[in-house]
Amino acid sequence: MSVKSEHIPRATIQRLAVYVQVLESLQRDGTEVISSEPLAKACNVNASQIRKDLAYFGEFGVRGVGYYVKNLIESITSALGVDREWKTVLIGVGNLGRALLNHKEFKLRGFHIVGAFDCDPFKIGEEISGLEVVCTKRLKERVGDLGVEIGIITTPPERAQRAANHLIEAGIKGILNYAPARITVPDDVSVEYVDFFHHLYALSFNITFNKNK
Amino acid sequence: MSVKSEHIPRATIQRLAVYVQVLESLQRDGTEVISSEPLAKACNVNASQIRKDLAYFGEFGVRGVGYYVKNLIESITSALGVDREWKTVLIGVGNLGRALLNHKEFKLRGFHIVGAFDCDPFKIGEEISGLEVVCTKRLKERVGDLGVEIGIITTPPERAQRAANHLIEAGIKGILNYAPARITVPDDVSVEYVDFFHHLYALSFNITFNKNK
Repeated sequence: MSVKSEHIPRATIQRLAVYVQVLESLQRDGTEVISSEPLAKACNVNASQIRKDLAYFGEFGVRGVGYYVKNLIESITSALGVDREWKTVLIGVGNLGRALLNHKEFKLRGFHIVGAFDCDPFKIGEEISGLEVVCTKRLKERVGDLGVEIGIITTPPERAQRAANHLIEAGIKGILNYAPARITVPDDVSVEYVDFFHHLYALSFNITFNKNK
Repeated sequence: MSVKSEHIPRATIQRLAVYVQVLESLQRDGTEVISSEPLAKACNVNASQIRKDLAYFGEFGVRGVGYYVKNLIESITSALGVDREWKTVLIGVGNLGRALLNHKEFKLRGFHIVGAFDCDPFKIGEEISGLEVVCTKRLKERVGDLGVEIGIITTPPERAQRAANHLIEAGIKGILNYAPARITVPDDVSVEYVDFFHHLYALSFNITFNKNK
């Protein structure tokens, strides 16, 4: 499976994450089997796209039956490497940082935030969602102790690069950046930007030019 | 310009939002002119992609000089319809909702959150960032009074559809959904999903299969 997995394009990963979200909600509602047509409808894509995406990791469904919801969730999460626990740390305990620390969905999906860092002396020592805020200078030591692999940046834009530098120095290979700033990282580090504004731009554009479907 | 604008693909809009972010940061640093190569580098795309994207709305730069930063920001935001103020309301005053209400970047970029709604009687009447939390039942009346065009959903997943129904009933044509749930809307309503998890999935995948660039 890993050979095939290596070739999953970025856009497919994005859709696979949506499929998992929809499948998990179907599972909660007691659905055990679903064919590609209703699954496609619930995911806002067409059925041939789903079949193509799932074929990346050899998941073709059962003819005349469809996909087994539980199996399909397992296949997708295993192909993406998200069928295990990932330890993360968060830098920047502002409003957004606090909201993410309290967000139940991270842990539910296997992403445990095990450390919260900030350089503000008024925040250090504060406890949020069971975590004590620690000085960012101690990040490297903590990341090693805790086995952290992913860093989340929720600082103001002007501090994002410094936060990234701390994460890189600590040996972290994956960064989720919520700060509205681009950051520079070495080639072996992966960055994902959670940028709210392109969504607002897309909405404005659609409303302005009446491009709603 | 609007004729050309109508054909801007979704992926281009996403990149244009990044260009604006980078250009605004260049502008803050005092840069007045930039050629496509360094702009491309700062945006993590290649220069031919930028030239192609900007050509959508007739922006070609000046040969041997590059792009005028201020003009380019104006061209892009005007082509996307984000060169004016948009009024938005937010439904769901939990941790994430509070963080967004306090997020300065929305207002800076022209998206003013002018109403905060929740159905929890313990939250109604509370003041956050200068806004009084109002019962969701009063959404329709308020949206009309305030001239709101975009709705932001930050409810738990099981209440997202109900929140969407309130927005749709109030005549809103653009919804930004932060709740981890898919929602169903009429054809003339546009929805954007701010889903954190596909980013975490992409990071896990990159780390697992060593796909870092």
